[in-house]
Amino acid sequence: MRDLVTVLYNDFETLDVFGPIEILGRLTDQFNPLFYSLAGGIVTSSQHVPVMTEPLSELDSTRYVLLIPGGTGARDLVDDDMFIPAIRSLAEHAEFILTVCTGSILLSRTGILNGRRATSNKRVFAWTRTAPEVIWEQRARWVTDGTIYTSSGVSAGMDMALGFVADQLGYPLAHQVSQEIEYEWNEDPGHDPFSALYP
Amino acid sequence: MRDLVTVLYNDFETLDVFGPIEILGRLTDQFNPLFYSLAGGIVTSSQHVPVMTEPLSELDSTRYVLLIPGGTGARDLVDDDMFIPAIRSLAEHAEFILTVCTGSILLSRTGILNGRRATSNKRVFAWTRTAPEVIWEQRARWVTDGTIYTSSGVSAGMDMALGFVADQLGYPLAHQVSQEIEYEWNEDPGHDPFSALYP
Repeated sequence: MRDLVTVLYNDFETLDVFGPIEILGRLTDQFNPLFYSLAGGIVTSSQHVPVMTEPLSELDSTRYVLLIPGGTGARDLVDDDMFIPAIRSLAEHAEFILTVCTGSILLSRTGILNGRRATSNKRVFAWTRTAPEVIWEQRARWVTDGTIYTSSGVSAGMDMALGFVADQLGYPLAHQVSQEIEYEWNEDPGHDPFSALYP
Repeated sequence: MRDLVTVLYNDFETLDVFGPIEILGRLTDQFNPLFYSLAGGIVTSSQHVPVMTEPLSELDSTRYVLLIPGGTGARDLVDDDMFIPAIRSLAEHAEFILTVCTGSILLSRTGILNGRRATSNKRVFAWTRTAPEVIWEQRARWVTDGTIYTSSGVSAGMDMALGFVADQLGYPLAHQVSQEIEYEWNEDPGHDPFSALYP
């Protein structure tokens, strides 16, 4: 059993978080979803979802998967001298890191993605140029580099989460979860019809 | 502008709510997402998401869309003599009603679906037999009957929400939203590959 440490901030993108949480949170003997933010308390998504969080200072998990969502709130945090060191510390001790959408831009600021392959939201892909040390892949539904999984925009987080389940726990379980939630899983990380929209 | 009144209860299914909220909540000049529960306070999904809610007694919206999710918590509520009258009253005054997964079973208990067409989760479709006055459609991604939209399980709520946007605000806007969230929208309410899994 691993904790699933999700870092929230105001104006995170709703589905970036709750797509993967739906999938991983169903595997109750594998993942324990926990919600944190820098200061704790209620954090609200761009779509007005108020989520109760614990302060990161109180996190004492020793075995966890880290989930970092994207969202318009990331714009303010990308150079925040409290937030970036906090997620760097978290990322350094995570067994696995999952980012959705512009969550990978946040993660890039920790230096942990340097020299690694990653992807991000397609509409704002130009933002990746601010992290030239990362090997960005423009055409990818999600990218796996070792223990780091980065996905494209918003709904891509679900396909990535199922891919993560397939890698760690076997394809049959991932397929079963996709059927349980009646989701037509895009199983191919190279199938990315949205990359062509913003060439 | 309409309020989007979402009724939560403990052990609601995460994506039943936040799939449609992602889609409708992006249309900030059209829908205002609000989260309610019978008693108010923190309500937690089956996947451990703690959401802050207002008590239904404090709702004073006059123009709203009602969203009712499914989930394992619905099993306890389906014959609850506080909950069902509360959603009946809400449903009677809603401009539109959207249900996801077993949310349609909850709605069936209000009598509002009697003589109307509807669908529900495919894995537990047998549960629909407890509401024989409803014209249940086993093979449907979602069903529209007048102002009532009911969807299949979990992720089907996203396809239905986009269908609702297309009906009310035009196909181009729904298509645009699906691209913004990098979602391969199943646009055909008759395309339901999951109905065949549980014949």
